[in-house]
Amino acid sequence: MEHAPLVGVVMGSKSDFEVLKHAVDLLKEFSIPYEVRVVSAHRTPDLLFTYAEQAEARGLRVIIAGAGGAAHLPGMLAAKTLVPVLGVPVPATMLNGIDSLLSIVQMPKGVPVGTLAIGKPGAANAALFAAEMLATTDHNLRERLRVWRAARKEEVLAEELPQ
Amino acid sequence: MEHAPLVGVVMGSKSDFEVLKHAVDLLKEFSIPYEVRVVSAHRTPDLLFTYAEQAEARGLRVIIAGAGGAAHLPGMLAAKTLVPVLGVPVPATMLNGIDSLLSIVQMPKGVPVGTLAIGKPGAANAALFAAEMLATTDHNLRERLRVWRAARKEEVLAEELPQ
Amino acid sequence: MEHAPLVGVVMGSKSDFEVLKHAVDLLKEFSIPYEVRVVSAHRTPDLLFTYAEQAEARGLRVIIAGAGGAAHLPGMLAAKTLVPVLGVPVPATMLNGIDSLLSIVQMPKGVPVGTLAIGKPGAANAALFAAEMLATTDHNLRERLRVWRAARKEEVLAEELPQ
Amino acid sequence: MEHAPLVGVVMGSKSDFEVLKHAVDLLKEFSIPYEVRVVSAHRTPDLLFTYAEQAEARGLRVIIAGAGGAAHLPGMLAAKTLVPVLGVPVPATMLNGIDSLLSIVQMPKGVPVGTLAIGKPGAANAALFAAEMLATTDHNLRERLRVWRAARKEEVLAEELPQ
Amino acid sequence: MEHAPLVGVVMGSKSDFEVLKHAVDLLKEFSIPYEVRVVSAHRTPDLLFTYAEQAEARGLRVIIAGAGGAAHLPGMLAAKTLVPVLGVPVPATMLNGIDSLLSIVQMPKGVPVGTLAIGKPGAANAALFAAEMLATTDHNLRERLRVWRAARKEEVLAEELPQ
Amino acid sequence: MEHAPLVGVVMGSKSDFEVLKHAVDLLKEFSIPYEVRVVSAHRTPDLLFTYAEQAEARGLRVIIAGAGGAAHLPGMLAAKTLVPVLGVPVPATMLNGIDSLLSIVQMPKGVPVGTLAIGKPGAANAALFAAEMLATTDHNLRERLRVWRAARKEEVLAEELPQ
Amino acid sequence: MEHAPLVGVVMGSKSDFEVLKHAVDLLKEFSIPYEVRVVSAHRTPDLLFTYAEQAEARGLRVIIAGAGGAAHLPGMLAAKTLVPVLGVPVPATMLNGIDSLLSIVQMPKGVPVGTLAIGKPGAANAALFAAEMLATTDHNLRERLRVWRAARKEEVLAEELPQ
Amino acid sequence: MEHAPLVGVVMGSKSDFEVLKHAVDLLKEFSIPYEVRVVSAHRTPDLLFTYAEQAEARGLRVIIAGAGGAAHLPGMLAAKTLVPVLGVPVPATMLNGIDSLLSIVQMPKGVPVGTLAIGKPGAANAALFAAEMLATTDHNLRERLRVWRAARKEEVLAEELPQ
Repeated sequence: MEHAPLVGVVMGSKSDFEVLKHAVDLLKEFSIPYEVRVVSAHRTPDLLFTYAEQAEARGLRVIIAGAGGAAHLPGMLAAKTLVPVLGVPVPATMLNGIDSLLSIVQMPKGVPVGTLAIGKPGAANAALFAAEMLATTDHNLRERLRVWRAARKEEVLAEELPQ
Repeated sequence: MEHAPLVGVVMGSKSDFEVLKHAVDLLKEFSIPYEVRVVSAHRTPDLLFTYAEQAEARGLRVIIAGAGGAAHLPGMLAAKTLVPVLGVPVPATMLNGIDSLLSIVQMPKGVPVGTLAIGKPGAANAALFAAEMLATTDHNLRERLRVWRAARKEEVLAEELPQ
Repeated sequence: MEHAPLVGVVMGSKSDFEVLKHAVDLLKEFSIPYEVRVVSAHRTPDLLFTYAEQAEARGLRVIIAGAGGAAHLPGMLAAKTLVPVLGVPVPATMLNGIDSLLSIVQMPKGVPVGTLAIGKPGAANAALFAAEMLATTDHNLRERLRVWRAARKEEVLAEELPQ
Repeated sequence: MEHAPLVGVVMGSKSDFEVLKHAVDLLKEFSIPYEVRVVSAHRTPDLLFTYAEQAEARGLRVIIAGAGGAAHLPGMLAAKTLVPVLGVPVPATMLNGIDSLLSIVQMPKGVPVGTLAIGKPGAANAALFAAEMLATTDHNLRERLRVWRAARKEEVLAEELPQ
Repeated sequence: MEHAPLVGVVMGSKSDFEVLKHAVDLLKEFSIPYEVRVVSAHRTPDLLFTYAEQAEARGLRVIIAGAGGAAHLPGMLAAKTLVPVLGVPVPATMLNGIDSLLSIVQMPKGVPVGTLAIGKPGAANAALFAAEMLATTDHNLRERLRVWRAARKEEVLAEELPQ
Repeated sequence: MEHAPLVGVVMGSKSDFEVLKHAVDLLKEFSIPYEVRVVSAHRTPDLLFTYAEQAEARGLRVIIAGAGGAAHLPGMLAAKTLVPVLGVPVPATMLNGIDSLLSIVQMPKGVPVGTLAIGKPGAANAALFAAEMLATTDHNLRERLRVWRAARKEEVLAEELPQ
Repeated sequence: MEHAPLVGVVMGSKSDFEVLKHAVDLLKEFSIPYEVRVVSAHRTPDLLFTYAEQAEARGLRVIIAGAGGAAHLPGMLAAKTLVPVLGVPVPATMLNGIDSLLSIVQMPKGVPVGTLAIGKPGAANAALFAAEMLATTDHNLRERLRVWRAARKEEVLAEELPQ
Repeated sequence: MEHAPLVGVVMGSKSDFEVLKHAVDLLKEFSIPYEVRVVSAHRTPDLLFTYAEQAEARGLRVIIAGAGGAAHLPGMLAAKTLVPVLGVPVPATMLNGIDSLLSIVQMPKGVPVGTLAIGKPGAANAALFAAEMLATTDHNLRERLRVWRAARKEEVLAEELPQ
């Protein structure tokens, strides 16, 4: 079915949605079929495994996983599937996300997680990266990305500053 | 059987043994039954789950887990068992273990990992903490700990410095 | 007596209670006998020593100690007793708790402190870790822990996100 | 032509090859057509732009870019192409790669770089991530990845430790 | 023409103006001809190159560039022009500007960026540094700087504190 | 007696002497009566308390305390005596002394520790600070300090560099 | 004259007084003669030198210097006088005082600064350290310190927590 | 006289020359008249002031100042002269230069220091920045810079990597 999700957006806690919705908004804007749900590495580890085990067969082409603190969700998903996993460090503790960044990006050889910036910019960019990935075999999507980028450029050019 | 292991010592990679043997040596010294094996969160995630799921029934009273970089082993074990998990950050990357420390200690509410110092002192102390835990219901072990500590004190008192 | 405290919760300052009450709340919830008091390493060092010296005889099975900044309370308690000590780094300074974390976790070989996360999640997890420790010899408590965890899992499964 | 490169591996300096060859070795092992060259953001900025501008038309499906210090190569490539860019922080300064990591990962909304770990593990994982991306539309490659992962698992299971 | 800008003030985003206006205000105060505009390394990379390529011919004597996060603007400008570039790290992410500082200051040998402090003091000082540079061949400007500094000194001497 | 020690130099471990001897050497050079010994906060806490309790009566005018990792020695001494305590962070762990620095310097209001630099320069400067303190009431010592400083200045002036 | 200041409290900017008044308040409480003024290393360098050069002759027994950011005031005072200098890192920038801490504490061999904690606790402790220094030759002051400490202890003992 | 130095290269200690010679080598290569000497902020503060006070009259157009640890030399020079000061953080302590970087770059509003990278690349770039500054009014020097940059580009283009 054409609307079967291509991108799975998962997060360790409902409170992370404030950050991850910046990914969801862009997936919508690009008309990329997606699903979004809470999958906690620590509170629902079995669900995490099931989700990862079924990802390939369910047709997911990329997973966006956001988590905070000792953020194990992206790396553990990546350990259980060959579907590419993008990690979004969520600033959920007193350390402003540097803990989540290191917990996500410093994966050992063998199990990669493509890591984005801490917080909202990272969530938005995870969606854009997923779009770029899908666009390598979807000409229409690439054109939509090209248009989107051109619009960003126009925004900059139109910005006026007090001289 | 009296020699069934009470402490499980696991690590993410054989190379971590250089650090974790400092735990093993002390468990031996205190005659605490233990087992030691490689369980990689990222390369053998199913083994990690199985290990954690069986820990309680197998009679483990505490698990010592060491890992480096994006260190997910201790936290994922803790997510899958009610047996207390002690985490040892292994300095395995360019960041000297600060990444492993934060990946292990910054667990969210709900799944605790008792974290020790980075590297060899942390490994030794994980064994001592395990011994202290077991000693809360094992008078003989507590006495052996008391003797061990007294010996450490004597070592300090015997140290001589150039005046 | 069955209500003699098994867990001692101590903190360096009354202001730390805002963090440590997250430990107390869970101990209550699990019906674990506890006591709670202010013991300052720097303002009442003798009380700290007395507290540690009497902990074993008073029947404490674990001590939860929270402190901020140059946090010496957990480590000094651990130096004076064989009762296991759990440390909770309190974010009390401009450095958001990274100073307390390092002051608590980086103990040298010989005197372990099982360290939890900075702040409230760490306080809650200290209580859970204490419960797990006690549960290794208390079947009823372990079942209560199992139920508690199952409830956490259900919470996650029940969370709904905007699609 | 079947051997036209699908993956471009670029680095800011020849000395970075010591790190990036860990990506090249895996691309070879997976028989993924690739090219490798030095493209310096600061010494050859025009080449960087040309490389990025031509990447899509040349059929590159992903670019792996490694750089150290104030690492601008991955982000600037990503600003100039819709081909997905993976960034590998190279530890080239006194700061052990934390500068390159932050320079690569902290991209603002609009231009994503999928960032891997600092140094050799990150280089290897960039290749694996590229392989996973390509494998989303290449069944054979995915099977080769599956076999590779299974071999990693077997390595762990075969590791023996002193008991 | 005497009012052709000698200093170009550029920033990655209009929101950076809150910081960069502290540079603009001082350039005005010193009657130094300047221009100010948004030039985004990531959203308008071609504009960045054009700006840098024309800077010398347009008579710019120094460029002040402010950017946040993975701040590539100052370094990429410096790679494309021989006009001296001053970099101002803007605190635009969860990391309070330490990411921008390292992204700007840790340039490799060959392409210098004179880096100032994070945020508003750095923006003000970029203008002062530019003024000092211009003053090396402009006696009048140097005297205005001397007067300005003397006024700062008088401000300090006039400050009164409760005794 | 004139040779009763005025300065007590204590350290957490004999291995710290490699750092602390830089304090001892300067105390000798200034003919300041001192004593030096190992007092471990964690292995000999009672000795630490006794040492601190007797310091004032024994005539110590200042205590120099060096320790590494979770460095509790200086702060706990300071909590037990009104004799001024100088702290020297020893780089004894994977974190190069940043852990000891924060463990020593971030004392809460009420119990001060005058902290010096990490490692050997800090040890030397602890001795110099002690000398400056004693010199406030010892004219001869102040003159010896003045001569020592003048010699440092002459060293600089005599240094020649390749032109 | 008995009221000639024994302690000089200086700070780099009037805005630092919000921190430094915590030193002043304690000096008052202990009836220690003091003076307080703004001396900026960067805006009034000559005043800094003059202040330091006259400190000894004016009878100052200790200088408390607070500064933020690139905090040069304490170290430069120390370079110009043999009167002991205590440094208080003021959190005045985006980096929360870690920059001032390192700028103050990491002095090279030869010129010591006794450094206290970042911010208000450090300011208060600078006054207490100064008091301890003066008390080494002032029995009455030592007794006042003893009373003050005892009151702190009583405060802790009187604190009540919800059980 | 045409060979009167235009650039003053100063450093806090002879041992810093290992870093600063990378500046000197480039100044030589560009035939820029320079002088080089040891000026220690802490051991020779008066010399520092004299050097700064005479810099303008002596015709210096820029000062390059390198220092390690609590690096006060660049900022104090800048406080005493209107000649632009470039700062080079020297990695001289256990903290690998992050202390010197922050001590140099985080100057408050009013006294700018143009800061370069930590260590050798920063020293080389300080010379290049000085050259760029002088080249704004020296056409020949700008052409030499242009040639030098072109040579760097050719070096990159000529680098060959194993394919």
